[in-house]
Amino acid sequence: MPSFHTLRWHDGALDMLDQRALPERCVYLSYDCAQAVAEGIRSMVVRGAPAIGCAAAYGIALDALRLCHEPQAAFDSGMAHAFETLAQSRPTAVNLAWALERMRARLVTRHGTGTEDIAAALLAEAHVILEEDVVINRMMGRHGSALLQDGARVLTHCNAGALATAGHGTALGVIRSAVESGKNISVIADETRPFLQGARLTAWELMQDNIPVTLIADNAAGLMMSRGEVDAVIVGADRVAANGDVANKIGTYSVAVLARRHAIPFYVACPLSTIDLGIATGAGIPIEERAADEVTGYRDQRWAPAGVMVRNPVFDVTPAELVTGLITERGVVLAPDREKIARLKQPVELGPTHRNA
Amino acid sequence: MPSFHTLRWHDGALDMLDQRALPERCVYLSYDCAQAVAEGIRSMVVRGAPAIGCAAAYGIALDALRLCHEPQAAFDSGMAHAFETLAQSRPTAVNLAWALERMRARLVTRHGTGTEDIAAALLAEAHVILEEDVVINRMMGRHGSALLQDGARVLTHCNAGALATAGHGTALGVIRSAVESGKNISVIADETRPFLQGARLTAWELMQDNIPVTLIADNAAGLMMSRGEVDAVIVGADRVAANGDVANKIGTYSVAVLARRHAIPFYVACPLSTIDLGIATGAGIPIEERAADEVTGYRDQRWAPAGVMVRNPVFDVTPAELVTGLITERGVVLAPDREKIARLKQPVELGPTHRNA
Repeated sequence: MPSFHTLRWHDGALDMLDQRALPERCVYLSYDCAQAVAEGIRSMVVRGAPAIGCAAAYGIALDALRLCHEPQAAFDSGMAHAFETLAQSRPTAVNLAWALERMRARLVTRHGTGTEDIAAALLAEAHVILEEDVVINRMMGRHGSALLQDGARVLTHCNAGALATAGHGTALGVIRSAVESGKNISVIADETRPFLQGARLTAWELMQDNIPVTLIADNAAGLMMSRGEVDAVIVGADRVAANGDVANKIGTYSVAVLARRHAIPFYVACPLSTIDLGIATGAGIPIEERAADEVTGYRDQRWAPAGVMVRNPVFDVTPAELVTGLITERGVVLAPDREKIARLKQPVELGPTHRNA
Repeated sequence: MPSFHTLRWHDGALDMLDQRALPERCVYLSYDCAQAVAEGIRSMVVRGAPAIGCAAAYGIALDALRLCHEPQAAFDSGMAHAFETLAQSRPTAVNLAWALERMRARLVTRHGTGTEDIAAALLAEAHVILEEDVVINRMMGRHGSALLQDGARVLTHCNAGALATAGHGTALGVIRSAVESGKNISVIADETRPFLQGARLTAWELMQDNIPVTLIADNAAGLMMSRGEVDAVIVGADRVAANGDVANKIGTYSVAVLARRHAIPFYVACPLSTIDLGIATGAGIPIEERAADEVTGYRDQRWAPAGVMVRNPVFDVTPAELVTGLITERGVVLAPDREKIARLKQPVELGPTHRNA
């Protein structure tokens, strides 16, 4: 297990590792209300679709605990505001909406009981979401690790690791599971401009676990592939449409196009909660654009000329046809399409870790 | 004309704009010997294949002037050392070898005359190389601008502008010529990690000329193309093999693969001096790897974990089949191949600007 917690319930508050400070400093920030958690999500203290979902669930629980001594009307309107605030914190990752939906279902189920009981139930649900996430990642890891040969050199983009989840990780979870099963796996980490999740987070996280990792500029992925130095690509996802189109960190699409050209398998590790049947194709997935200063420099340092126009879309869409397989907690779906994904998501087939029906 | 000089003979020395300090500061450094020029090339004070060629030519002239009062044997061995030192400064751009070969031819032609005459002839030859470069860029600009529609949104990678040449530029020269001919052209500049030539140099250079430029992370090129926001790609080249394979800044290959997927024309603007008939295919082009610290941070700021393994190849090879056209001073070669390139390079057809036969 890694030596850090991405998020953790501690002393009546949510502690989150401030990922903006990594890898220099390992600092935990404490959150006591939904508004603060939403700001933490927006400002990227925590990022990664599953981790954002967990954080949002705790945000709801925090406000429920904070408001449960208020009159019912104040509690209700406060909770409505908490859901709204968290829902608007970031647009692309569907796990945020998924976790909020799950918390809302628990709130509705409990309606009529006392607000203190509701708050306790919501906190319990947040704990379950967190614990399930680790279990699901380990299931994905087991399924996915079978896809990797001993000695495989795996390229990944962004950070879909323990830092992007409650633990173990999605894409990096597959790599961790393969390593745990005795395979020699080495990782090529795209630095992942503009926010440098690969350089700052993936490299750090894998070094903590002594998994060999080589950092490259995103631009070098094509050359590495053309030289035969990449055996597989595994990335995470922020939202998968009903047809299998994958929204993930900006640049994922380029990696997928290059992988196809070089006949390198391109896998997407994503829990079922990341698959959004409400969106038919990738064209319907909202793509967040973030501030220009992520592109024009780093922290206080600017390298682009003052006043330059900037576009900073932070996700892109990889069409399903480029995806060799979706790695989920229920198995690997090769050549994903609408039918396979619909079957995968059928509630009747949900395993025992899904207790939110 | 731009308000800066990439390199300029001034007061018996070579002044070069220190491109490492751009865009914050516009500082000129003065060079008085081949060794110093080689160090300036190696450390990226000056970069860009044609500009490196010009700088190397002046490096030879500087040592000739410095040594021309020595006995013949000392002059000869000093000059041999100057050629050697400059040739080793950077490996990928062939213009360096091309310019040195041209200077060597002039040296040999003049052998037997006095060393002072030789030095004067070498300085004159460096001046000619510099002046020719601007003329050639303008010819390429005229040919290439015909390829761009009014209103075209042109994506470029790295800096193939006035800063990469003696003036006007290769890829940006085509854009400048199109703008001069009255077309509305806007540029999407890849930031070009790791050295950020797009963010620091291309954005700055185009803003100086009031040509609309939008900076993006390299990772965003695919999304921009998939949204129909890119009409053409134009890049420069560091070396073109006899079959039309193009070595250029790392990441160029990714852009070319993406452009092909989206049926966007991908043009390479390169003078004939960049075409190396001595190398059959791109596989034979040496690819420089530079220091890890270009990837792990910026200037004094580190963002990757200390001790992380890094690969930093700074060029890649785009196969000829992905090149819509080579834009040269003798015209545009569509779908370049070995035969077309051999014809293009035939000395008998060289125009009046080629005086080094």
